[in-house]
Amino acid sequence: MSTLTNRLYRLRSRPVGEVTAENLEWTEEPVPEISEGQALIRTHYLSVDPTNRVWMSEMRSYIPPVELNAVMRGAGVGQVVASMRHDLPVGAHVVGLTGWQDYCVADAAHEDFPFTVLPDPLPAPLPVFVGVLGHTGISAYLGVEFGDPKPGETFFVSAAAGAVGSIAGQLAKRRGARVVGIAGGAEKCRYVVEQLGFDACVDRHADDWKAQLDVATPQGIDVDFENVGGEIMDHVLGRLNIGARITLCGLISEYNDYDGNNAGRGLRNVSQLLMQRATLRGFIVFDHVDRYGEIIGELSQELAQGSMQSEDTVVDGLENARLTLNRSIAGEYRGKVVVRVAD
Amino acid sequence: MSTLTNRLYRLRSRPVGEVTAENLEWTEEPVPEISEGQALIRTHYLSVDPTNRVWMSEMRSYIPPVELNAVMRGAGVGQVVASMRHDLPVGAHVVGLTGWQDYCVADAAHEDFPFTVLPDPLPAPLPVFVGVLGHTGISAYLGVEFGDPKPGETFFVSAAAGAVGSIAGQLAKRRGARVVGIAGGAEKCRYVVEQLGFDACVDRHADDWKAQLDVATPQGIDVDFENVGGEIMDHVLGRLNIGARITLCGLISEYNDYDGNNAGRGLRNVSQLLMQRATLRGFIVFDHVDRYGEIIGELSQELAQGSMQSEDTVVDGLENARLTLNRSIAGEYRGKVVVRVAD
Repeated sequence: MSTLTNRLYRLRSRPVGEVTAENLEWTEEPVPEISEGQALIRTHYLSVDPTNRVWMSEMRSYIPPVELNAVMRGAGVGQVVASMRHDLPVGAHVVGLTGWQDYCVADAAHEDFPFTVLPDPLPAPLPVFVGVLGHTGISAYLGVEFGDPKPGETFFVSAAAGAVGSIAGQLAKRRGARVVGIAGGAEKCRYVVEQLGFDACVDRHADDWKAQLDVATPQGIDVDFENVGGEIMDHVLGRLNIGARITLCGLISEYNDYDGNNAGRGLRNVSQLLMQRATLRGFIVFDHVDRYGEIIGELSQELAQGSMQSEDTVVDGLENARLTLNRSIAGEYRGKVVVRVAD
Repeated sequence: MSTLTNRLYRLRSRPVGEVTAENLEWTEEPVPEISEGQALIRTHYLSVDPTNRVWMSEMRSYIPPVELNAVMRGAGVGQVVASMRHDLPVGAHVVGLTGWQDYCVADAAHEDFPFTVLPDPLPAPLPVFVGVLGHTGISAYLGVEFGDPKPGETFFVSAAAGAVGSIAGQLAKRRGARVVGIAGGAEKCRYVVEQLGFDACVDRHADDWKAQLDVATPQGIDVDFENVGGEIMDHVLGRLNIGARITLCGLISEYNDYDGNNAGRGLRNVSQLLMQRATLRGFIVFDHVDRYGEIIGELSQELAQGSMQSEDTVVDGLENARLTLNRSIAGEYRGKVVVRVAD
């Protein structure tokens, strides 16, 4: 094994703004030998999630920041290529925190977030297990459940063409809500309405996006599935109906701005949470591991029936992971973003 | 009746910042004759509440703004002095939206917020019925119920020496929580700790108030009873524990800043609502009229037993109401603030 080379990213400094090559060093190291209680996993696809950016900062978060000089943390799917563990047999496909590297040694250090062995034969392509049948799909499912849109209510979702938003809107539509999204650019908006079946989608890049949003939500907003925060969320707060629910899943607009003290622009229109007697609930998917099986089962069925659509954007090459994250946060992609590391 | 003079405030323009004499005109008019279905109420005490300031603005709120040139809306307690209504007999003491005036004609215009006749003989001094046994006490009770502090948890309340905060902290203390407040000035802090029995109180006027707050909440914050917003709330967000509850009762720091578009500084530290999986609930006491009887009963008992303390700041003279509101929002008073209009 020691002849294998591990290409990987190490976090050398904490970025402010976009992640630079100095912040996140791209390097090569020998793959370590495994010993008792360890398995070696070859990463096939790396999941690129805005929350990766949070992990690089010292923002007080749901998980400790990646330590300086450590391998960048990240979720991925891969295959066990060597093993001294019975629960991770050679050949098994697994999903877990592979890190931003070709090869990951799975051992006790992973006990908080253990690897999960995927069914054999695989019921879906590998990227799906970090997407709609992984933490993004489960996040969408939980957030819709928490927001609880009723038939006839208006459900709004930001980053509507993104991995979570695209699934969340489809799930809300199934509950009989009017579903309105916001996404960057006319092409994404078309995708959201024509492919995903949303009732409307506001183009964030249009000068009149606020007016578009007002027109698209003539009855106000009952549920906001929030992925972005900042200016969009502020405008949404001004459209809330009495008793509105906000399911706070992400704040992508803030992640690049954390400088050790403040996290971005924040919100101005907080008073509307009070005036409209809104309930806001922040949630992190990892708190709900006990629900994963049930939710994956339900989402699998939807996919199998063709009643739900998901799309992956696959970027080739681990060496492109850093730029892919920057671009993902800038809203350049559609659907779930993964980096293909190996096949 | 037509020989009587009504001194009153009319809203002539919408204030930005403190309320000026131009915004809120102090004037005299004859008291109108009452006709069938009307009663005339003499205001005895006017309730001065930060929310009065919201009503002067066009901020989207839980109640329409006071119309320009209309009498300023406000809660008060008074006595029926003339009546052509069976439900409001002459001599009865009542609580309701008297407006900022000596005399109020109670008629169909009040049907959304009808006057309530108080028990005879009065079980407590009149100001109490707009205070601890009125909407402020009920707000405190409901907010504590929503926040649901458990024994050993840390309950934090802003504007702790104020009408709502002082009651909220005492109620949370009875549930076995560690209760920490923040108030402006050493004297108020002493009052909060020594008289009201809070475990600690942070002096908002001290340069090191943030450090004081950290020291006073060594186990973090599980429940935030929020009355103020802005910088204080941002710091509190940074102290939240996982699963924290924020009961959003007021945002006093924002009310003066609404300029028709934006409402003040807002919040920067929104990401902590997500990272700590917090739940925030905005509420307005008027939504819970069905609970008033039960809650007033419970609070009455606490007062009668001497197990709860409340304090009123009484400012003499209706002509001082405007300045009293400005000073109340600036945090110059302790406890419930009322203006004595007549005895």
